Amino acid sequence: MRSICHKLRADGQRIGFVPTMGALHEGHLSLIREARKMADKVIVSIFVNPTQFGPQEDYMQYPRDLARDADLAATVGIDYIFAPTVEDVYPPGFSTYVHVEGLSDKLCGKSRPGHFRGVATVVSILLNVVRPHFAFFGQKDAQQTVVIKRVVRDLKIDVEIVVSPTVREADGLALSSRNAYLTPHEREIAPTIYKALQKVKSMVDQGNTDVSQLLTALGDTITNYPEIRVDYAAIVDSETLESVTEIGKRPVIVAVAAYIGKTRLIDNIILSAPE
Amino acid sequence: MRSICHKLRADGQRIGFVPTMGALHEGHLSLIREARKMADKVIVSIFVNPTQFGPQEDYMQYPRDLARDADLAATVGIDYIFAPTVEDVYPPGFSTYVHVEGLSDKLCGKSRPGHFRGVATVVSILLNVVRPHFAFFGQKDAQQTVVIKRVVRDLKIDVEIVVSPTVREADGLALSSRNAYLTPHEREIAPTIYKALQKVKSMVDQGNTDVSQLLTALGDTITNYPEIRVDYAAIVDSETLESVTEIGKRPVIVAVAAYIGKTRLIDNIILSAPE
Repeated sequence: MRSICHKLRADGQRIGFVPTMGALHEGHLSLIREARKMADKVIVSIFVNPTQFGPQEDYMQYPRDLARDADLAATVGIDYIFAPTVEDVYPPGFSTYVHVEGLSDKLCGKSRPGHFRGVATVVSILLNVVRPHFAFFGQKDAQQTVVIKRVVRDLKIDVEIVVSPTVREADGLALSSRNAYLTPHEREIAPTIYKALQKVKSMVDQGNTDVSQLLTALGDTITNYPEIRVDYAAIVDSETLESVTEIGKRPVIVAVAAYIGKTRLIDNIILSAPE
Repeated sequence: MRSICHKLRADGQRIGFVPTMGALHEGHLSLIREARKMADKVIVSIFVNPTQFGPQEDYMQYPRDLARDADLAATVGIDYIFAPTVEDVYPPGFSTYVHVEGLSDKLCGKSRPGHFRGVATVVSILLNVVRPHFAFFGQKDAQQTVVIKRVVRDLKIDVEIVVSPTVREADGLALSSRNAYLTPHEREIAPTIYKALQKVKSMVDQGNTDVSQLLTALGDTITNYPEIRVDYAAIVDSETLESVTEIGKRPVIVAVAAYIGKTRLIDNIILSAPE
């Protein structure tokens, strides 16, 4: 992969890189399409990264089907798939980690300790191998995009991070490889999370910028369904991830993580106060 | 610096990089000479890195004289000096650290908690800016070379790490910017550290491979001088830094850190059992 990318760079080709854990869906394909627009060559990595899963999490059961992923990626047009083994990425004696203090401990980091250290580490490694001009991430994983942008800024990695909008089902559910875990009933009520986010948006559009009122309304929408257990619901600054009490001109992330049955889903929207 | 290095690479120039904290001495110059041999262009960074100093350490008093350093470097021939400010390297909100687990906590890491995290972080940043083909470090900082090689291997940074032998005064004292802190009397007894290392070498050359006997002899040599306080003396594997009990074919580092008055000095030699 490194020697291919060296040659592409030497030939003046602009490299677009879409790191994924496979189980590709329309969300990933939208990232690949964006990469196609911005870059000359598009590389998709498929690697289910063990260091970003907690010991009780779904690393073993996470869906893996390289042949299907390759076929799907081919429908939008890619140039290379990079599918390293765990031993390729983490050779024996591996002991170096990239950690973003502060940002990594908030929101999802509270219930998934070590998750963002795993993400920051694997993304650093993949970027060092591919050395792309652009790397593409989905807004659905809002905290991940904030952490990765910080790593790239702080460690002065020479790449432009591009964040693309969340792709949704017709009923509003954010696409996620983990949606496959949902039972039919769970799938039916899952769009509640997005409905609750839209409720917040409509209140803000109508001029309500009081975060405590907004979070109450968000929680009320979700707790209509006892099958949904909220892990967190928060309104935070979109760069620092610090809680805010009032929505102003700086964009905020309205973020929710919730368990539906055993499946943990996340979603978010970005808002700022109307002019 | 980045745009200069981009251009050098694009022009097919091989870049040699010598990261330093300034206060250059013959040890640094030997690294620069080695870089001159291996690379087409030589870049020396001068940056007293705050994140590798503990709160009680000598960050504030560490010698800084850019003009003198530039003159000295020019005598061996360099192409660029890279002297960023603290704010260039660590902008407001900086919060990303590179940490090597295990290796960082041994030897000097015990008495300097956080030191190697600071080293691993700043070296990662500098390598990301300069993107050299080769980077040069002195054997005097043995643990630093092991940590940096691990970072480069684990994070798959595309650079070759070159380690050059320790340069010594005529009486054996390893060159160090911190030697300037020594009083005349301290300077006189400082070569004892190297004499103790040589004692171990001569015992091993004569067939004694028992680490506990070797460490006793090393300690006895140093404790002849009550002004010298040993921080640690250890014989460890040269890659894992794990203690060994017997010297075999795998190279070991015989490493000493000791305070002479208020000044902490380190030195080491690499040994393996004779054939």
